[in-house]
Amino acid sequence: MSVDYTQLAVQGVRQLQPYIPGKPVDEVARELGLAPENIVKLASNENPLGPSSKVLEAITKAQSELTRYPDSNGYSLKNTLCAHLNVAFDQITLGNGSNDVLDLLARAFVAPGAEVIFSQYAFIVYPIVTQAVGGKAVVVPAVEWGHDLEAMAKAVTEKTVMVFLANPNNPTGTCFSRSELVKFLGQVPEHVIVVLDEAYFEYVDSEDYPNGLRLQQDLPNLVVCRTFSKAYGLAGLRVGYAVASPEITDMLNRVRQPFNVSSLALAAAEAALHDQPYLTKACQINHEGMEQITSALNAFEVSFIPSKGNFVTADFGENAAGINQQLLQQGVIVRPVANYGMARHLRISIGLPKENERLIKVLEQIL
Amino acid sequence: MSVDYTQLAVQGVRQLQPYIPGKPVDEVARELGLAPENIVKLASNENPLGPSSKVLEAITKAQSELTRYPDSNGYSLKNTLCAHLNVAFDQITLGNGSNDVLDLLARAFVAPGAEVIFSQYAFIVYPIVTQAVGGKAVVVPAVEWGHDLEAMAKAVTEKTVMVFLANPNNPTGTCFSRSELVKFLGQVPEHVIVVLDEAYFEYVDSEDYPNGLRLQQDLPNLVVCRTFSKAYGLAGLRVGYAVASPEITDMLNRVRQPFNVSSLALAAAEAALHDQPYLTKACQINHEGMEQITSALNAFEVSFIPSKGNFVTADFGENAAGINQQLLQQGVIVRPVANYGMARHLRISIGLPKENERLIKVLEQIL
Repeated sequence: MSVDYTQLAVQGVRQLQPYIPGKPVDEVARELGLAPENIVKLASNENPLGPSSKVLEAITKAQSELTRYPDSNGYSLKNTLCAHLNVAFDQITLGNGSNDVLDLLARAFVAPGAEVIFSQYAFIVYPIVTQAVGGKAVVVPAVEWGHDLEAMAKAVTEKTVMVFLANPNNPTGTCFSRSELVKFLGQVPEHVIVVLDEAYFEYVDSEDYPNGLRLQQDLPNLVVCRTFSKAYGLAGLRVGYAVASPEITDMLNRVRQPFNVSSLALAAAEAALHDQPYLTKACQINHEGMEQITSALNAFEVSFIPSKGNFVTADFGENAAGINQQLLQQGVIVRPVANYGMARHLRISIGLPKENERLIKVLEQIL
Repeated sequence: MSVDYTQLAVQGVRQLQPYIPGKPVDEVARELGLAPENIVKLASNENPLGPSSKVLEAITKAQSELTRYPDSNGYSLKNTLCAHLNVAFDQITLGNGSNDVLDLLARAFVAPGAEVIFSQYAFIVYPIVTQAVGGKAVVVPAVEWGHDLEAMAKAVTEKTVMVFLANPNNPTGTCFSRSELVKFLGQVPEHVIVVLDEAYFEYVDSEDYPNGLRLQQDLPNLVVCRTFSKAYGLAGLRVGYAVASPEITDMLNRVRQPFNVSSLALAAAEAALHDQPYLTKACQINHEGMEQITSALNAFEVSFIPSKGNFVTADFGENAAGINQQLLQQGVIVRPVANYGMARHLRISIGLPKENERLIKVLEQIL
């Protein structure tokens, strides 16, 4: 071949390091010759409860229309979200997971060379979507694994067009408080779009945890992203959304693919919003599982970053990669975070009590 | 508000005219006060058969894992596609519908200002994805509503990076032959990526219709796109794919969102590939329905563009918009194509025999 097609790609894409997902159970089973039913996956911050029965009913009902395109406007789901969140229809952008919404934000507002600010150890999709459009990533060093909002505000320059904040942040689980966020938002010029990623919103029960939607009402440059992939248990179906000013929403919907959310995802997300008991149970199971795992880590004298999400990231020292391999050999999948510059750490998603117990037993053997 | 947030968007996005989808049945029912069951939708080139029972079984089986993220690699579906298409694993890019794949192609290879060639009346997603990344659209006048491949080859300049071809084309239904395509591909320099959109591939039964995959084997600059939304009946679930050289595939997968295809879509598409009887029936129903509708159009002395797809686009004269409104009032949804510069035409998707009959009766009254 005389043409190198990789060299024809635009620079931002050519330099992209693809996202590294958690290994699916089937893949680990294939690689290690294990039976899938003996594998425990605590690697992708998924809801361990399994799907809500109301969601499954909604999918069954919707699947007779599978040969039809989805409603491009997401009319029914958006109306349900409006009532649920107390926001207007023209403030909502639906995405193929919140990853899609983050991608749309970068595509709509970040021109090549424009500066995008995020924290060290922040969710890796922020650098990916920035790089893909040729934006310039400005990474602000973390403090105690969390966002240094003071320093992030100071990092804003004339070239800054967007700031990504994650609250809680993945993979560290750190949160900032309402007063810290309000102060930060007061310091950022209103022509800079602040994206507040609240993918783990539903799990947080702290008094001083800010609800981004309340702040958004007075701040047209604030975009709040949420997802159905975590507490609502719909990771496999891909639905997330952004709430923003109508002007920003208009731009996101222009670049959005017209049928980016499938009809089963639309129906499932709507049903999930109506299933409050499932959500309550998901949060309770998570709270108890967090206790279970962090108690064990304490007993093993393994330090960890206090987390508000559905996962905890622990410091396993120099041999973290080796410990990860030993866990895999025993059929326990957790997530290495070396690609975040955290080579000593492993991120453990909170599972069901017996899954957590399995992890703890295997860890005990290894340590 | 002192900041105009629409003005902060990148130029390409700000100037985007969003895709206009066919009206969903529910929306028409709401707007016109009709009962949804009395509405016939022949507007979105959907498969009228309803979903395959094998697909529904696969969805039911997969839905227990709905709280898990999809397999980012699409391992199982890609392997099935490899066997089905006789291509290699590293040649396949899965998309959230083929719309996603077309979008990825533009994002990966079209820099702002680069030229992208397509035909007048070509599928409107080509100008949209080109505009979104700031590419320069070069529209080559059609001949008899179809691609003028000779003129398209001559339109290639030093700035050309991509050519979109649709075979058959939507919304015109026109096809070009193998010899025309081979000649065109011989004229295009190998550093120009040719995207051959075969969304309606399965419906075509012409002797001289080229199978893009066979040509792709010898042409690393050729990308073939196909979809599960049409003959396979999975429009609601969003799955499409591209087959390309490994180098191009690598770039597409870098910019691809890691979980762009849902787990139910992966499972459904795989099941659909194994359901040959469904595909055969879909094509047969389409063939018969095309006969039924074009015979009626001939009887009404309404001229139409001969179509190889699952739709036919007919010339209703100056009053096409009025006829469309009358059809809507009677509960028959077809697609105006004025946004394609075809204000005299309406595009009619082929339905089930009784749906086609309903359209024909209502048309008879109107005309």
